[in-house]
Amino acid sequence: MRLDIPALLAALTLEEKAGLLDGADFWRTQPVERLGVPGVMVTDGPHGLRKQAGDSDHVGLNDSVPATCFPPAAGLASTWNPELLVRIGEALGRECRAEEVAVLLGPGVNMKRSPLCGRNFEYFSEDPLLAGELGAALVNGVQSQGVGASLKHFAANNQETERMTISADADERTLREIYFPAFERVVKQAQPWTVMCSYNKINGTYASEDPWLLTQVLRDEWGFEGLVVSDWGAVNRRDHGVAAGLDLEMPSSGGAGTQVVLDAVKAGTLSEADVDRAVTRVLTLIDRSLPALAPGQTFDAEAHHTLAREAAAASAVLLKNEGGLLPLDPRTGGTIAVIGEFARSPRFQGAGSSQVNPTRVDSALDALRAAADREVTFAPGFVIESEQADAALVDEAVRVAREAEVAVLFLGLPPSYESEGYDRAHMDLPAQQIALLHAVADANPRLVVVLSNGSVVTLTPWQDRAQAVLEGWLLGQAGGAATADLLLGAADPAGRLAETVPVRFEDNPTIGAFPGELGHVRYGEGLLIGYRWYDAHRLEVAYPFGHGLSYTTFAYSDLALQADGDTVQVSLTVTNTGERSGRETVQVYVTDPQATVFRPEQELRAFTQAVLAPGESTSVTLSLDSRAFAFWHETAGRWIVEGGTFGIRVGSSSRDIRLEGTVELSGDGYLAPLAPESSVDVWLEHPAAGPWLREQLGEGMFTAMLSDPTNGQMMRAIPLQRLSRFPGFPVTEPDVDAAVQRFSAR
Amino acid sequence: MRLDIPALLAALTLEEKAGLLDGADFWRTQPVERLGVPGVMVTDGPHGLRKQAGDSDHVGLNDSVPATCFPPAAGLASTWNPELLVRIGEALGRECRAEEVAVLLGPGVNMKRSPLCGRNFEYFSEDPLLAGELGAALVNGVQSQGVGASLKHFAANNQETERMTISADADERTLREIYFPAFERVVKQAQPWTVMCSYNKINGTYASEDPWLLTQVLRDEWGFEGLVVSDWGAVNRRDHGVAAGLDLEMPSSGGAGTQVVLDAVKAGTLSEADVDRAVTRVLTLIDRSLPALAPGQTFDAEAHHTLAREAAAASAVLLKNEGGLLPLDPRTGGTIAVIGEFARSPRFQGAGSSQVNPTRVDSALDALRAAADREVTFAPGFVIESEQADAALVDEAVRVAREAEVAVLFLGLPPSYESEGYDRAHMDLPAQQIALLHAVADANPRLVVVLSNGSVVTLTPWQDRAQAVLEGWLLGQAGGAATADLLLGAADPAGRLAETVPVRFEDNPTIGAFPGELGHVRYGEGLLIGYRWYDAHRLEVAYPFGHGLSYTTFAYSDLALQADGDTVQVSLTVTNTGERSGRETVQVYVTDPQATVFRPEQELRAFTQAVLAPGESTSVTLSLDSRAFAFWHETAGRWIVEGGTFGIRVGSSSRDIRLEGTVELSGDGYLAPLAPESSVDVWLEHPAAGPWLREQLGEGMFTAMLSDPTNGQMMRAIPLQRLSRFPGFPVTEPDVDAAVQRFSAR
Repeated sequence: MRLDIPALLAALTLEEKAGLLDGADFWRTQPVERLGVPGVMVTDGPHGLRKQAGDSDHVGLNDSVPATCFPPAAGLASTWNPELLVRIGEALGRECRAEEVAVLLGPGVNMKRSPLCGRNFEYFSEDPLLAGELGAALVNGVQSQGVGASLKHFAANNQETERMTISADADERTLREIYFPAFERVVKQAQPWTVMCSYNKINGTYASEDPWLLTQVLRDEWGFEGLVVSDWGAVNRRDHGVAAGLDLEMPSSGGAGTQVVLDAVKAGTLSEADVDRAVTRVLTLIDRSLPALAPGQTFDAEAHHTLAREAAAASAVLLKNEGGLLPLDPRTGGTIAVIGEFARSPRFQGAGSSQVNPTRVDSALDALRAAADREVTFAPGFVIESEQADAALVDEAVRVAREAEVAVLFLGLPPSYESEGYDRAHMDLPAQQIALLHAVADANPRLVVVLSNGSVVTLTPWQDRAQAVLEGWLLGQAGGAATADLLLGAADPAGRLAETVPVRFEDNPTIGAFPGELGHVRYGEGLLIGYRWYDAHRLEVAYPFGHGLSYTTFAYSDLALQADGDTVQVSLTVTNTGERSGRETVQVYVTDPQATVFRPEQELRAFTQAVLAPGESTSVTLSLDSRAFAFWHETAGRWIVEGGTFGIRVGSSSRDIRLEGTVELSGDGYLAPLAPESSVDVWLEHPAAGPWLREQLGEGMFTAMLSDPTNGQMMRAIPLQRLSRFPGFPVTEPDVDAAVQRFSAR
Repeated sequence: MRLDIPALLAALTLEEKAGLLDGADFWRTQPVERLGVPGVMVTDGPHGLRKQAGDSDHVGLNDSVPATCFPPAAGLASTWNPELLVRIGEALGRECRAEEVAVLLGPGVNMKRSPLCGRNFEYFSEDPLLAGELGAALVNGVQSQGVGASLKHFAANNQETERMTISADADERTLREIYFPAFERVVKQAQPWTVMCSYNKINGTYASEDPWLLTQVLRDEWGFEGLVVSDWGAVNRRDHGVAAGLDLEMPSSGGAGTQVVLDAVKAGTLSEADVDRAVTRVLTLIDRSLPALAPGQTFDAEAHHTLAREAAAASAVLLKNEGGLLPLDPRTGGTIAVIGEFARSPRFQGAGSSQVNPTRVDSALDALRAAADREVTFAPGFVIESEQADAALVDEAVRVAREAEVAVLFLGLPPSYESEGYDRAHMDLPAQQIALLHAVADANPRLVVVLSNGSVVTLTPWQDRAQAVLEGWLLGQAGGAATADLLLGAADPAGRLAETVPVRFEDNPTIGAFPGELGHVRYGEGLLIGYRWYDAHRLEVAYPFGHGLSYTTFAYSDLALQADGDTVQVSLTVTNTGERSGRETVQVYVTDPQATVFRPEQELRAFTQAVLAPGESTSVTLSLDSRAFAFWHETAGRWIVEGGTFGIRVGSSSRDIRLEGTVELSGDGYLAPLAPESSVDVWLEHPAAGPWLREQLGEGMFTAMLSDPTNGQMMRAIPLQRLSRFPGFPVTEPDVDAAVQRFSAR
C-alpha cells in the first residue's frame, strides 16, 4: 500500500492536517482513518531497538521487547569501521521490521564537549568527521532495510544538565566547524528519513523553533529531504516550530499542539502552506515506511548476537600492554584470577531512553571459563553501587590474585554514575575500586585491568599499577564474550580511541564553562574540544585521540601526495610488521600553518583501515576534498580555502604521526571586501587599493609616519576612515567611501 | 577665574555648544573667546607627563618636554602600595601644573587578559581589585593637586590588534566581575575628573556610543560625575556618542564631529538637552581645572627623581634567591661582573603614547659602580635589537663572568617586542639572550638575572641556571639606581607579582581566543583570567600571583574572623622572623565552595602591608564588604550574596596561604523567581511551591517515577511546564501558570 499524497492533501481538513503534525500517543503518528492513512510507530534506539512492551506508560520508560543490544556509540566509535556499522545498521533495520517499527530514533552524533556529559556513551566522538562517517554508515545500514533512522539531537545538545532549557552559546564558526559537521555529513551521505531536533536553545533560540537551523542550514544548505521530529517534549511554541521547519511533534501533546497550529492559521500568523509542507513530510514518512511494515517478519537473534560480539571485540581499545602480557594463552599456564563484579554482572549499556532489553547477556567470567583450558578463579571484590569497600570482598580478591599467575580486574562506572538526564559529578572511578586495584596489584603485579565506562575516566593516578589496560567502554550484550576473545587472543584489538583520555579532569576544555548556569552555557573554548584543545595547550594526555594497540605492529611508508585543484589524494603503504594478523586504522590529519585566522593545530580529515596478515603490505589511498582544508569564514558566511602550504600528517594516532608531507593549494581566491574601517595595512596590501593609497599619500609626513620603525606598526593598524579624520591627512572621509565603492566593484 | 556655567549655557549658540564637544587641536579643548571660555590642555601619561614640545604634529607623537618618568603600571602594580601611588600621583599633578596641563590621560586599569597584549606594561594587573586600588590611589594623588586624571580605557580594551574595531565578546557576568570592577572601584574611591572610552566594541557596540556602558553603568550605577572623553580617534558616530554619554571628542575632528552634532539636532535625532548635558560637563571640567593652571609653577625634579627611585625599588620582584646569593655585599668581596647591554642602556618604559622624555636616566651599571666598594666589570653581551648573537660579545661576557666572583646578567625584551599599537608575537626573551645566559652560567654559576620587560616572559626553560632572578619590569628613569639598591641590599625587595608567571605560553587562558579575528574576539575563558585560570585548571606556574621574596621572612598567626551581616573583619598577626627590616604584603583570598554558580577557586578581596623591624610583630585588620562575597547574577541583574560558608585564606601569595578560616554568612536571601520552565527539582525545592506540587502529585504514578532510583533524576530535571503536557500528568499547563503567579507574589 502506498499513499497518494497530493490527493490526500486535497482531501484533508485543516483540523486533520494539524492533527497529523502531532503524535497519536507516545510512539505513534496520528492515523486519519477516514482517508486510509495509517499511523506508524517510531521507537528508541540507537544501539538496539527499545520498543515498549504492552501499553504506553506515558513517559516511555516501561519494559521493552527483547532486542539485540549492540555496543552503544562510545564503543562503536572506537571501531573506526564504517563497514561494520553498516552491517549493524542492517541488523537494527531487520529488528525494526520484525517489530513493525517504521523509524529507529538514532543515531546521536552530538560532540563530546565535556567528559562529564551523562549521555556521552550514546555519542560517538569528540571529532565531527569520525562521528559523521560512523553515523552515516549506521543510517545507511538501517535504511537499506526500508526502515528510517532519526539523526539526533540537532543541534548543540552536549550536556544533560538543564538540557530542556539551556542555551548553548557558541559563535557560528564553532557551530559550523565542530557541532554541525557530523550532522551535515550524515545528511549528505545517508539522507536520513528524519532528523530529531534537540531540546536546548542555541544562542537563545530553541532548536525546535529555529528557522535558520531547521530550514536554512539543514535543508537549503545541506539538502535534507526528510522530516524533522521534536525530541520527546522539545516543543516550546508549536506554531513557531511549524513555521521554522519542525514537522512532527512527539510525543502526543494531547491535542494542545494541534490547537495552537489551528489557532495560528486562523489568526493568520501561520500560513496553511507551512502546514501543508509539514503534512506532506509526515505523509511521505508514513508512505515510505509502509512497504517494510508487513507483519510476521522475524530476525535471526543468534546471528545478531554473533554480530554484536564482533562489534564488541572491535570496540574495545587496548590502551597499554607492557611486556606483551596480553593475549593470555588460552591453552597453557597457571590460574587466571578474574576479579571484579563487572566480570560476572557486566555493565554493557547506559541508562535512559536507549536502554535495550537484551536477547541475552554474556559475562566475561563465563566466557573466559568456557574458552580457557586454564583454571579460572573469581572474586567479586566490590558491590557495584556501593561507595564503601567491603573488607571481606577485598581480602578474598587479594587471596585469589595472590594464588594466580595473572589477575584480570574488571573495574568500571556504576550505572548511577552516568545516564541520560543528568551529567557526571566527576571523572573518577569509585574510590573503593581504586583501593581494590592497589591491593590486588600488591598481591599480583601481573595485572590486567578491563574497564566498563560510557565515557572517559581518570587513569593516570593508578594505571601504572596495571601491566595492561583494556578500555571496554560499554560493549553491548555480547561484550563479555568479546572481552574473552580479546584477552585470549581469539580477536585482535583493533579499537582506537574516539576521544582523548586526559591526564586529569582539570585539563579538559570546559572547566568553568560546563554545564553552565542560569540558562546559558558558554562554549568558550570555541573550536578547541578534544584533541584540538590538548594540542593547542600542549598538554600531555594519558592516551591521545586515535590511540590503540594491536597484538601486532604496523609500519608506514611511501607517502605520496597529489593535489588537483583543492582536492588531494594521499597514498601510502602500510605493512604488518608483527607476527599476527591485524587491522590498522590509518589516520590523516591536516594542518594549516599559514592560515590568516586561528586554526586548530591539526584536524582529522580522513581515515581508512587495512587488514593485513603478518608481513603483508598494502597500498592505501585517501581522498581529501576542499572541505578538508577549509574554514568557516564568519564575515563571508561560507567555507574558504586559503591558498598556501598545508601540512599532511599520516599516523596511527593524533600523536603518533608516521609520515608527513606538504601540499600547495591555490585556494579559492577569496579577497575580503574593503571597508572604511579596514586598517591602513589592509588597504596597502590590497592589489588595487594599495597602489592608489600610496599615490595619495605621496612623500608627505604621513608616509614617513606610517613607515616609522617605532610607531609605524601602530599607525598602520588604524582604520583608514579614522585616519582620514586626522587634521591634514591627504585622503578625506568621502575619498575613503569612494575608494571602497571603486575597489569593491568586480 | 571661574566660569558661570548656567550663564554660559544660556549665552552659547548651538554652534558654539557643538564646537565645545570637539577638540581644538590634538591636545586642547575649544575656547569660546566671545564668552571668555578658555581652552585647556590634556596630555598623555600616565607614569609621567608626555606633553608635546612645540607645535602639534597632528598625530601626537612628537618629542615632548622633559618630565619625571616613574615606573609604568606593570612596575607600580608590583608595589601593592596605594600610599606610594598617592605620592606618585601628587608628583605627577605637580608636573602637570608646571606645564599648565589640566588633565593627565591616565591611569589605565584594563585587565591583563593575555600575556601578549602589547600594552600590558601600561596596565596594572590580571586582578581587578589590585588594579582598582592602585588606580584609585594614583587618581587621588593627581587630583589632590587640582589636576584631573582620565581613567582609561573604558572598557574591555585588552589587546592592541584591531583595537579600533574589534568587538570584545563577553557575557555580562565576565564584564561585571573581571573587566569592570577596577573602573568601578576608581570611580567610587577617587571620582576621576574624566573617563576615557576605549576604541573597541563590546558585544558589537562601540564603547564610544554605548549608552549602557557610558551612562547606565558608569553614571547611574557607579555614580560617576565627571566627563567622558574619547580615546584619540575612537569616535564612530558622533551623534550617537553624545546621546550615549560621550561628552568630548578628541583630538579635533576638524569640525566634522561638530557638524554631525548640529545636523542631528536640526534633524531632531539628537536632543539639545543631550548636547547641553555634554557641554555642561566640558565647561565643568574647564572650570575646575582653572585654579591650578596659574603660570610659572615649577616642580622639584631632583625630589621627583628620588621618589621615582623609591618607586622603582618597590616595583621590582625578587622571584628566586637560592642560597641567599642576594643581597651582594657592597663593601667586601671579589669582582662583580655586570653583563648585558640593558645594564648600560636601560629599558625603563614602553613605546607609544605613554613614552616620556625623562629628566635623567640612571643606568644600573653606573649605580653599581658608584655604590659598591668592589670591582665592577662590564660586558654588553648582545645588541638589544639584534636577533643574531655576536660571538665576540658572548666571548667577552664569558670571560668577564669567569673572572668574577658573581655575575649579574641584565636581560630583557627589546623595545620593538612590545608597544602600544600591536601585540607581542610570543612570550620569550630573544634566543640570543638565552644562549648568552647559558654561556655565562657555564662560566660562573653564581649568577643573578635582572629582567627588563613590560609583561611576563617565559622563565622555565632557563631559570634553573640562575641562582637569583629579579623581575624588574620597566622601572622608569631611576630604575638603574633602584636596581643597584636592591642588588646591594640598600633596599629590601617588597615587590609582589601582580600577574602570574606561567610555566609556558600555552598554559595561558586565551589560546585560540586572542587576539581574535574578523572583527571579534571571544572572551571564552570568562572569569578565568590570570590566577583564576591557573587555579581552575590546577596548572603549575613558574611563580604565582602575589609572589615575591624579601631579604627577610615573615610569619602569620592568630587569624580571627568576625562577621557582621555580610561584612567580615579579618585580623591576624604578622611577625618579621628574619634579620632585616622588610615590608610584607598580606593578601586575603575568599572562596565560595557552596556557590550555586561556578565561581573561581579563590579571589583576592583585600590586601595590606606591614613594615616590620627584625623580630617585630604587628596586628593587621582587613575589611571585607559584601561585594567580597558576591557574584553578578545574570538573570537577577545584580550582585547576589548567597548564604552559606565562605572560606577566608590569608597568605603571602595566591599559592602560599598561611592561615585559613571560614565564616558563615546569611546572604541576602535572593530566591530566583519560579518560571514555567523551571525544573521539577526547582519547584520541589521552593519553600511554598514545593508542598503545593507534592500535594498535586499525590501518591500517583508520577510521584513514583519522579523518585525512581534509575530515571527519577532525569524526570525531575524536566521543566514543570513540559511535564504538564505529558498525557495524564495531574498538573495542567494553566495550573503551572497560575502557580507561578501565586508563588511569585510577595
